Amino acid sequence: MKHARGLILGAALAAVALPAFAQSVAIGAMEERLRERGLSGSGSYDILESLTTEVGPRPAGSPAIARAKDWAMAKMTSLGFSNVHAEPYSIWAWFKGVETAEVTDPFPQPMVITGLGGSVATPPGGLEAEIVLFPTFEALASAPANSLTGKIAVLTEHMGPNDSATGYGTANRWRRRGASEAAKRGAVGFMLRSLATNNVRQPHSGAMNYEEGLPKIPAAALSGPDADQLERMARRGKPIKVKFTLLPTYLPQATTWNVVGEIPGSATPDEVVLVSGHMDSWGLGTGAIDDGAGVAITMAAAHLAGERHPRRTIRMVLWGAEETDQAGDAYAKAHAADASKIVIAGESDFGAQHVMYFQTPAGSQDLPAIKTLTEALKPLGVTYNREPSKFGGDDIGHLVSLGVPQLSMRQEGAHYFDIHHSAEDTLDKVDPAEMDKATAVWAATIYALAQSGVDFRKAAPAKP
Amino acid sequence: MKHARGLILGAALAAVALPAFAQSVAIGAMEERLRERGLSGSGSYDILESLTTEVGPRPAGSPAIARAKDWAMAKMTSLGFSNVHAEPYSIWAWFKGVETAEVTDPFPQPMVITGLGGSVATPPGGLEAEIVLFPTFEALASAPANSLTGKIAVLTEHMGPNDSATGYGTANRWRRRGASEAAKRGAVGFMLRSLATNNVRQPHSGAMNYEEGLPKIPAAALSGPDADQLERMARRGKPIKVKFTLLPTYLPQATTWNVVGEIPGSATPDEVVLVSGHMDSWGLGTGAIDDGAGVAITMAAAHLAGERHPRRTIRMVLWGAEETDQAGDAYAKAHAADASKIVIAGESDFGAQHVMYFQTPAGSQDLPAIKTLTEALKPLGVTYNREPSKFGGDDIGHLVSLGVPQLSMRQEGAHYFDIHHSAEDTLDKVDPAEMDKATAVWAATIYALAQSGVDFRKAAPAKP
Repeated sequence: MKHARGLILGAALAAVALPAFAQSVAIGAMEERLRERGLSGSGSYDILESLTTEVGPRPAGSPAIARAKDWAMAKMTSLGFSNVHAEPYSIWAWFKGVETAEVTDPFPQPMVITGLGGSVATPPGGLEAEIVLFPTFEALASAPANSLTGKIAVLTEHMGPNDSATGYGTANRWRRRGASEAAKRGAVGFMLRSLATNNVRQPHSGAMNYEEGLPKIPAAALSGPDADQLERMARRGKPIKVKFTLLPTYLPQATTWNVVGEIPGSATPDEVVLVSGHMDSWGLGTGAIDDGAGVAITMAAAHLAGERHPRRTIRMVLWGAEETDQAGDAYAKAHAADASKIVIAGESDFGAQHVMYFQTPAGSQDLPAIKTLTEALKPLGVTYNREPSKFGGDDIGHLVSLGVPQLSMRQEGAHYFDIHHSAEDTLDKVDPAEMDKATAVWAATIYALAQSGVDFRKAAPAKP
Repeated sequence: MKHARGLILGAALAAVALPAFAQSVAIGAMEERLRERGLSGSGSYDILESLTTEVGPRPAGSPAIARAKDWAMAKMTSLGFSNVHAEPYSIWAWFKGVETAEVTDPFPQPMVITGLGGSVATPPGGLEAEIVLFPTFEALASAPANSLTGKIAVLTEHMGPNDSATGYGTANRWRRRGASEAAKRGAVGFMLRSLATNNVRQPHSGAMNYEEGLPKIPAAALSGPDADQLERMARRGKPIKVKFTLLPTYLPQATTWNVVGEIPGSATPDEVVLVSGHMDSWGLGTGAIDDGAGVAITMAAAHLAGERHPRRTIRMVLWGAEETDQAGDAYAKAHAADASKIVIAGESDFGAQHVMYFQTPAGSQDLPAIKTLTEALKPLGVTYNREPSKFGGDDIGHLVSLGVPQLSMRQEGAHYFDIHHSAEDTLDKVDPAEMDKATAVWAATIYALAQSGVDFRKAAPAKP
């Protein structure tokens, strides 16, 4: 069945019931038309401008995320989405408060830090202790027991470029696990060089986790230049004392929302193509590239694709707690019973630049629908990566566990981690033409998947 | 006399008493030797590394400037300077304290600001008012009387590139005068887009002045992206309320120091070539390019030139209150009686990059000594600008009023205002090879001027 459905696609789709205006247009032509439509001004930048200006930073569980929810419902309604609604769920929430740091001895001077998401507070008057520097996470994780008693552990390892051995995939483990590795050895505080790929003097936030059964110690990110400064001081060979203060707010119970809107399918509305971005952001920037861009690109793309009335339903989901890993789980739990309707799901969550390549589920590599789409995207420099898609987005993973196939759209992001999770994540860092390129690709892809008869849920084994 | 002294130089200097080791070396050769010596590792970067690491930010009148003074005396002593001493003087001082801002209505979100140097405080709980945006300083300065009553005036004009019509020369007047122009029309607060040439989300500090007889209102700089954000909000057409809090410390009486060291002249020690940089900095960065670099370049260059025992005394002055315009004045007052010994004075205060061109006082344009120096500097891309020097540095102006001739060394600074007066002014922004290039030029120039018989104090009229 899956093969049969796939194979008839390229040639036979003209026979399927299509809206009147599109009946004479071959499927590849429609994708090309959407590609050009997106390039000529997709509207995604305006959506992003609106979200980042009118709402600003949007931590999950905050008053701002409630405003983002209202914004999202109004925006989707104005774009003609149906069934627009917000699905509330309960989360823990964490908001940054006072964040200060200084070297107190022997070279007194201020430092620039931010708390890691989920960190406990320091005492109100701050936490002061001698620091111990670690050039690598490996060195910290292999330090002897009790070797950090009463100290602040400082990890100065540099994150590498994206996709390198020490790129974000590896480095975010340092941020998540560093505090507990330090606490295990007696440390009273933990700091790390911000996970960033430039030397702007901004700290980069991000979630951390505490290991069960270990003391929870305050954890912060230093700006890159501040980590450099501590390394220079340490070379002088004298003990260095640092004092830092973090007074975040932790709410064990707060509310956030996944906001949903649909463009009902013209032929098989019970088959759903789910596309998404996340509304929530950390508190330092206005969440322009992370992930206002993903919200805006997929919303504009879904709107453009929907105007062509494809056969399947396009469902737009704006996640409300990606940064603290609570959105996809809540959605999967709430939709365990109807997730089987989702034919494929994807998320845009890697900035505002063009798409480099895309991947589809195992078994779909040689289907005409994919080849037709690939051809339509080639003029934008997009390639088809035959490796089956294994990462549809952080919020998609829980749906995948329920058997939902995933779409992977890989965006250019060589400079993504210059900005990610920092105060630099603001609209001025976004190029509208790049957003249009990304939106054009998403629009053509959403249309192709929603118009296609390929049932990714019944994937064929990958061909050799 | 001046002409005679000038004209004999190029050919006849071998006849002047020189230290034994240098007697057989023609003056141009010594300059070339110093140029190469500087390029091969001038030591200036290490001096800068030491100052920015061990002292950090150094506001005039702060405990940090006292540590900078001790650092400077120790460093000059270790480099073999004589007569190393600190000359104290009394100044007003201003240190930043709490600095927060937020839009409170209709799009509540935090903003990034810093107080302008010299600003009065807001009430401890902050100052909240509707904002009025001005796209140009001209628009603010021509707004009707009483048109800003109870409002916060916000100037969003972009500073242009260096040397453009709206470059720093013009734009720093907006910062200095904006608050009083706003107060004159009834405003209760003033903010301006940071004087910066990039879009990093950092505010840039800098001195401001209050006009006599007008209310003193709190004044702050917004980061560029925050100014953009207010402009976007304003386009929505609704009144916008901003709340900001500045709690700086103002001391009417504080102490700072100009630190002095000399390399006594081998032949005419009563003739002084004064070179300088300023130790003090604003509080946000570590004062690497403004002006640790100038301190380090001129100190290393004076040291290298001094090792060749030129005829005149080289006097190194490290100014202790440039940013608040109090250092040069204090020095000129203290040295009114002996300033006549200073043959020429210059300052390096434009970052850590190479020298593009240099200028000397009127009347010296065609002297052989200048031509010889020009030839020696050519391989580094330095040109001689025949326009008589009119700006030797902010701290030099008061000496010029006493009749001291000035040297102007113009450094490359296309990106100087990306960093200037912001938290980004840290060591990592400095290229050691560029510093060596600048130091090489200063070393050769200091030597040429200290070895020369040209008496710039008795300048010839500029030739046509």
